[in-house]
Amino acid sequence: MKFIYRFGGGRADGNADMKNVLGGKGANLAEMATIGLPVPPGFTITSELCIAYLKKGRYPKGYSDEVDKGIMHIEELTGRKLGDTSNPLLVSVRSGARISMPGMMDTILNLGITDKTVDGLIRQTNDERFAYDSYRRFIMMFSNVVQGIPRVLFEKPLREVKERERARFDYQVSVEGLKELIKIYKKIYLEKIGEHFPNTPKKQLKMAIDAVFKSWNNERAIEYRRIYDIPEDWGTAVNIQAMVFGNMGDDSATGVAFTRNPNTGAKKPYGEYLINAQGEDVVAGVRTPKSLTKMENDKTFKHIFEELTRIFKKLEQHYKDMQDVEFTVEKSRLWILQTRTGKRTAVAAVKIASDMVKEELITREEAILRIKPDDIDNLLHPMIDPDVDKKKLDPIAKGIAAAPGAAVGKVVITAEDAVRLSDKGQKVILIREETSADDIAGMARAEGFLTVTGGKTSHAAVVARGMGKPCVVGCDDLYIDMERREIRVGHSIVIKEGDIITIDGTSGYVYQKEIKLITPKLNTNAKRILRWADEIRKKGKLFGVRANADQPEDAAIALEYGAEGIGLCRTEHMFFNPERIDVMREMILAESKEQREAALSELLPMQKNDFRRLFEVMIDKPIIIRTLDPPLHEFLPSLDDEESIKEIAKKLKVFPEQLKERIKKLHENNPMLGHRGVRLGITYPEITKMQVRAIFEAACEMTKESKHVLPNIMIPLVGHFKEFVEQRKIVDEVANDVFKRYQVKVSYKVGTMIELPRAALTADQIAKHADFFSFGTNDLTQTTFGFSRDDVAKFIPMYIEKKILKYDPFQTIDVDGVGQLIIMAVEKGRSINSKLSTGICGEHGGDPLSIEFAYQAKVNYVSCSPYRIPVARLVGAQAIIKHGDIKKRSRKK
Amino acid sequence: MKFIYRFGGGRADGNADMKNVLGGKGANLAEMATIGLPVPPGFTITSELCIAYLKKGRYPKGYSDEVDKGIMHIEELTGRKLGDTSNPLLVSVRSGARISMPGMMDTILNLGITDKTVDGLIRQTNDERFAYDSYRRFIMMFSNVVQGIPRVLFEKPLREVKERERARFDYQVSVEGLKELIKIYKKIYLEKIGEHFPNTPKKQLKMAIDAVFKSWNNERAIEYRRIYDIPEDWGTAVNIQAMVFGNMGDDSATGVAFTRNPNTGAKKPYGEYLINAQGEDVVAGVRTPKSLTKMENDKTFKHIFEELTRIFKKLEQHYKDMQDVEFTVEKSRLWILQTRTGKRTAVAAVKIASDMVKEELITREEAILRIKPDDIDNLLHPMIDPDVDKKKLDPIAKGIAAAPGAAVGKVVITAEDAVRLSDKGQKVILIREETSADDIAGMARAEGFLTVTGGKTSHAAVVARGMGKPCVVGCDDLYIDMERREIRVGHSIVIKEGDIITIDGTSGYVYQKEIKLITPKLNTNAKRILRWADEIRKKGKLFGVRANADQPEDAAIALEYGAEGIGLCRTEHMFFNPERIDVMREMILAESKEQREAALSELLPMQKNDFRRLFEVMIDKPIIIRTLDPPLHEFLPSLDDEESIKEIAKKLKVFPEQLKERIKKLHENNPMLGHRGVRLGITYPEITKMQVRAIFEAACEMTKESKHVLPNIMIPLVGHFKEFVEQRKIVDEVANDVFKRYQVKVSYKVGTMIELPRAALTADQIAKHADFFSFGTNDLTQTTFGFSRDDVAKFIPMYIEKKILKYDPFQTIDVDGVGQLIIMAVEKGRSINSKLSTGICGEHGGDPLSIEFAYQAKVNYVSCSPYRIPVARLVGAQAIIKHGDIKKRSRKK
Repeated sequence: MKFIYRFGGGRADGNADMKNVLGGKGANLAEMATIGLPVPPGFTITSELCIAYLKKGRYPKGYSDEVDKGIMHIEELTGRKLGDTSNPLLVSVRSGARISMPGMMDTILNLGITDKTVDGLIRQTNDERFAYDSYRRFIMMFSNVVQGIPRVLFEKPLREVKERERARFDYQVSVEGLKELIKIYKKIYLEKIGEHFPNTPKKQLKMAIDAVFKSWNNERAIEYRRIYDIPEDWGTAVNIQAMVFGNMGDDSATGVAFTRNPNTGAKKPYGEYLINAQGEDVVAGVRTPKSLTKMENDKTFKHIFEELTRIFKKLEQHYKDMQDVEFTVEKSRLWILQTRTGKRTAVAAVKIASDMVKEELITREEAILRIKPDDIDNLLHPMIDPDVDKKKLDPIAKGIAAAPGAAVGKVVITAEDAVRLSDKGQKVILIREETSADDIAGMARAEGFLTVTGGKTSHAAVVARGMGKPCVVGCDDLYIDMERREIRVGHSIVIKEGDIITIDGTSGYVYQKEIKLITPKLNTNAKRILRWADEIRKKGKLFGVRANADQPEDAAIALEYGAEGIGLCRTEHMFFNPERIDVMREMILAESKEQREAALSELLPMQKNDFRRLFEVMIDKPIIIRTLDPPLHEFLPSLDDEESIKEIAKKLKVFPEQLKERIKKLHENNPMLGHRGVRLGITYPEITKMQVRAIFEAACEMTKESKHVLPNIMIPLVGHFKEFVEQRKIVDEVANDVFKRYQVKVSYKVGTMIELPRAALTADQIAKHADFFSFGTNDLTQTTFGFSRDDVAKFIPMYIEKKILKYDPFQTIDVDGVGQLIIMAVEKGRSINSKLSTGICGEHGGDPLSIEFAYQAKVNYVSCSPYRIPVARLVGAQAIIKHGDIKKRSRKK
Repeated sequence: MKFIYRFGGGRADGNADMKNVLGGKGANLAEMATIGLPVPPGFTITSELCIAYLKKGRYPKGYSDEVDKGIMHIEELTGRKLGDTSNPLLVSVRSGARISMPGMMDTILNLGITDKTVDGLIRQTNDERFAYDSYRRFIMMFSNVVQGIPRVLFEKPLREVKERERARFDYQVSVEGLKELIKIYKKIYLEKIGEHFPNTPKKQLKMAIDAVFKSWNNERAIEYRRIYDIPEDWGTAVNIQAMVFGNMGDDSATGVAFTRNPNTGAKKPYGEYLINAQGEDVVAGVRTPKSLTKMENDKTFKHIFEELTRIFKKLEQHYKDMQDVEFTVEKSRLWILQTRTGKRTAVAAVKIASDMVKEELITREEAILRIKPDDIDNLLHPMIDPDVDKKKLDPIAKGIAAAPGAAVGKVVITAEDAVRLSDKGQKVILIREETSADDIAGMARAEGFLTVTGGKTSHAAVVARGMGKPCVVGCDDLYIDMERREIRVGHSIVIKEGDIITIDGTSGYVYQKEIKLITPKLNTNAKRILRWADEIRKKGKLFGVRANADQPEDAAIALEYGAEGIGLCRTEHMFFNPERIDVMREMILAESKEQREAALSELLPMQKNDFRRLFEVMIDKPIIIRTLDPPLHEFLPSLDDEESIKEIAKKLKVFPEQLKERIKKLHENNPMLGHRGVRLGITYPEITKMQVRAIFEAACEMTKESKHVLPNIMIPLVGHFKEFVEQRKIVDEVANDVFKRYQVKVSYKVGTMIELPRAALTADQIAKHADFFSFGTNDLTQTTFGFSRDDVAKFIPMYIEKKILKYDPFQTIDVDGVGQLIIMAVEKGRSINSKLSTGICGEHGGDPLSIEFAYQAKVNYVSCSPYRIPVARLVGAQAIIKHGDIKKRSRKK
């Protein structure tokens, strides 16, 4: 086992690939040294040693010789010696695990100063103040970081000295003051630890290294590893490196820079630097750093800027990505202290990725993998201008960020008002205790929604994401006073109906004012990358992306965003329209088949028109239309809504009591598991007949106009193949009848939702009769877990907190359970019907991890809300790149 | 291919094993002929020929020669000839498929009479009237059965002739009258068919055979086969057999007999006979048949009786079972026309099986297989005396028979009244719209329940079966008028509160009077057979039977019926006791953990006592105790129950509004999928702690008294292994704490219900931590199908009717779906934990088909209601006998 890896002087024992042994920081330092960057020399003690030490409680034989060798390596390259009284070497000690982790020991700087070496440091730097201040800082840092003595104990005497000397800033303290503080600090150390402050660099170094290793097992670190499933036996490395100083005069500086603009992506270095300062000073915010653009024209630093530019180019060539670099200039000499991949905005991310392909730095595939799904999503929603100072925005409440983007509008508290005001051209924000299907019309008109209750998968949240509108839910500080028509937050804040507010569905904040929003767009760069992604997906038809869309308007948006068809058109939403709901209710309340058929025949022409309009948008593209799914009572008012009951009873010419009786009869204890889906189609075949007739009549008309349509009929909630067979028979019979009457034929498919465990378990039996499967992962998750989506808010948060569940299973597919059923259903289905097409059309269809799973499960496509289409296009391609071409893979078997 | 199989004269071409070719009737006729019984000679045309004929529309070459050979065979043995004018042969033609099936062609008798042969018949029989009457009947039967001419057309002229001749009965019509009728019948035939009545026996025979074959494809038969999944290509055989006549004078007779008494099982022939009559006459009910016991002393028939007795013995020796025999005596000569296994009562079934083992006719295994599970069940419930004439009972309504047995009592319409009256020593029947958990106390006191709504798996039905009480549900003719305290049935019938009624949960009938009930018991014979069954089950611990029991009283009954432990003790029922429900409510309504713990500490001693009492009954036997399962709102009144809310609020010292608010908060849209089971234990670990502490304190006390107890703790509704791990940690911690305090250790197991698809799918992950699995098949069925047991009544009946489902999946396990999950879970679980014990504790644990499935799925035991224990003991052994010893089988692999 090799204990240490040296770096510096244009060489290194390790490299960037050795993160497992050297940690992230050590590996990158080695890499930079190797490619000739000016890295202060140093060495890394391996994480393997850390584990060996922690296991046995002592260091292995030969270890201290190795550390001595490492120090000698630094001494040789710097010409200084640790503990030397005339030209002492100072080093930094830093922890560095495989991934950065909270709880691990912080940096110690200036290690090597003692009473004996401090004079040497003065001689070396010619700066008495610098030397004593460094000593003071070192004692404080060491005491705090290695021994855990609270910082506040050291800050008090500093404050006293400053007061006495009338010094405003630390750097104004006199040499005498610093000397006094050093004495006091040492005394504090002695009192707290019962030992003198270590007075040789060797002892200091040993204690610092021990402390780093031990910090691997501190409580915070253990907890973090438990939560994120990080193995205990990774351990941490330790980096020991020669100090360089940016605070050695006006030819010294410290700075941070990005190799490109992280906000815009422009190909130009971006950053700032502070003359005669150390990193700490930048953080303290005492002086304002200068922009890097000024460095080019600064006589003292012009050559540094040029060198930086060269180094940045080299770094990008080497790391193939935009870098975030820390540097120090010590007496006109540039040192690079750290480099890492730079964080960036969504706009910058797509521009950089796109540019780097042009620059031939990366391939298209790499560019696609560089883009985070959230980046694409962020490009699509209006948002609060990121340049606005967030602190000044002063939110009045915070809820759960349920659908991204921000919205501004006048407050309304009923769906009716939302419709009324938006008809007058006003922008409104709908605030409700919680929303329901009754609010749909109002929601369609509002800019965004805010609800008092509910979670990320509540009605409001789901509808919002479907509509691409911002939404904040579970904002329980709000109290809606329906009588006074106002909303109160706490005791003092009142929002009146009609007041303007801003909601931010990305952060969850609510503001009682109008905030300027900006609307980013899918820019040329984003479109270019998505086009590349599409090429990968479509080559060999590897993975498709469709939209969940019920209305022509949604379908048009979906098409614009790149949908390749409609994966789910829910027909029930079509009936909530005020003109239709009455006929629908007549149908539901019918006492006989005849009455029901009469009502249905009124609905037929309406439905036919619905489908015609949808077909017009989606010519040449498949449309999956689902027959009626929800329990019928969803179309009726609730029993305690006396007003509505009276009104509806009047319209339907029945007594309110009769209506109530009927509503009571339709009541279900568990509507999710009740009389819905295919069960409606079986008990009321006339409903299926009407819907299917509407679809085929519309399709025949289109065909006669030479417009090619691809209708797919989907039967929901099938659990037994015989249910499907019964309904398919109806579909085929009606189709043949319509074709005969129109004298034209339209090719169509009939398939089913797989949304019950039993359907997945018996997928082979169903696939014998079905042309396609669409996984309704919302319901499949409900039944597989036995979770009611409407009720889980009572315990899911605690499940996530206790790490019983890693993700909310309604957001990200549960691979072990629900995923197992999907894989099973795809395999069983294909074993019987090799042409079977499969898709996922639940909420999960727009979730990146779930899309990736879908591809791996050999599902043919995902279907998601129009606004998630670009994300799905991206993630689909990423999955193919990451996991390879399914067809090629399966051929190999 | 062989077209015909002959029988008669002590020989036969076929035998009893050839039912697939000869049909049931033909195969048995061949068998009887072979063993030397006096069977009228005949032959069977195979069902294979039937299929060949139906496919090609014509008979294969050589077929008619074969039929001729068959006829010759009969002619040789009888000495008569078909169509012979002096000594004509008459035959019967009957269909006979593999199983008896409605829609198939009826019997044709007397085939072979024509104008030419009728005189020969007169000479043969010396009975002109007999000959012409036979001719008349034949024409009518042939016309009706072969040609489908309505019988009524023939009855009209017969009636006219009788009126004219003043004949009261058919046999009083004169020869002249008969001759006239023959002419009229032939005319009817000619008019309807357009052809003369076939005037040669050959033509008659061909037409009759054709008709049998064609009847395979008549609508009724096709529909029947569709419903019962009978293959189309089975076809039917045709039996042609020499006629024998029981109506040839006072030395002739016809009769039916059982080889033993089918009511009591007594080993003595049982049956009746009618002198000078044909089968038809017995059916017509003109004369009363004599009991077979009289035959022994009837001079004319004494030798027949002796011969019958010999034949009966031979039949039982041969078929190894009690037989149901049809016989005819023609002029003092006995002919056996048919034998089949006889139907019998439950009492007879167990006696016969037990006796036949003693007689060494059958083995114990065969005896066990002979008993139908329903037989055992019927032996356990009070029932309406089967000797009472049912027609005179005059029921007032009929509902769904939901739990077997009958009960008599005074009508009460609230649970409170049930308690009050039963406290006064009165027997009551509880009638409710539907029952709920609130009614439990009243239900425990009532003799039986009758509900207006609900199906076989409704609350009332499930509770009834659990309590072993009769129950009729879904009796929707009833209207409960709570104001007038009466129940109305239609317009005229009124049942007042306090009136005595009788309900029959076996038939679903309700009677407005007291009916005498009898209570059969598990008699010696039944006990003996169950003991044999136990020996088979227990040898090698092949299959166990446990009880679902929450109370010591139930446990004691279970033990008496042979339970080997408790497979499910639901702790929630313990809290509905009036003294406890308030404390329970306090616990639920607690605003803080401290308040909740205070209430729980009040419940602790009560729970401890519950478990002590249960342990006392089940010493040395395993008890599986399930931690709290139902959603907490089940313990609170419903929101519109203002009265209860006020009362409870007062008791709990809160405002009614506060209570309402809390109830509202606890409301769930789908409680089945809501905050219940392990989810309660995770969010309120203090509840689990209290229950587990109560269990272990009770167990430790018992152990200190040297009583050996086997506590098993079961966590309900686990879907993710981490849920189980969390709860198991609590159990183990509390156990250790209690053991330390009591200075004693009790060995225990911790397991989980598998009642969610996800639990089954990830059973390997769970089994790593669990000692046992118990399949909660009720909930597993709900989630696998997505069926709410409370709501399925809206469509399950239609599903059964349309044959989408063969059984109600809540009664009989759905092998393809739910069963697949069980098999998967057992396999996955054992792959990780070879010691894993598995059981089924849902309603299915008492259902015969499901018990058989459980054994095949390698589940270790079933747990059912105490009253189903004997059934489970029987069926468990039957499954082992039928499917072999699992261990042996798996060793073979």
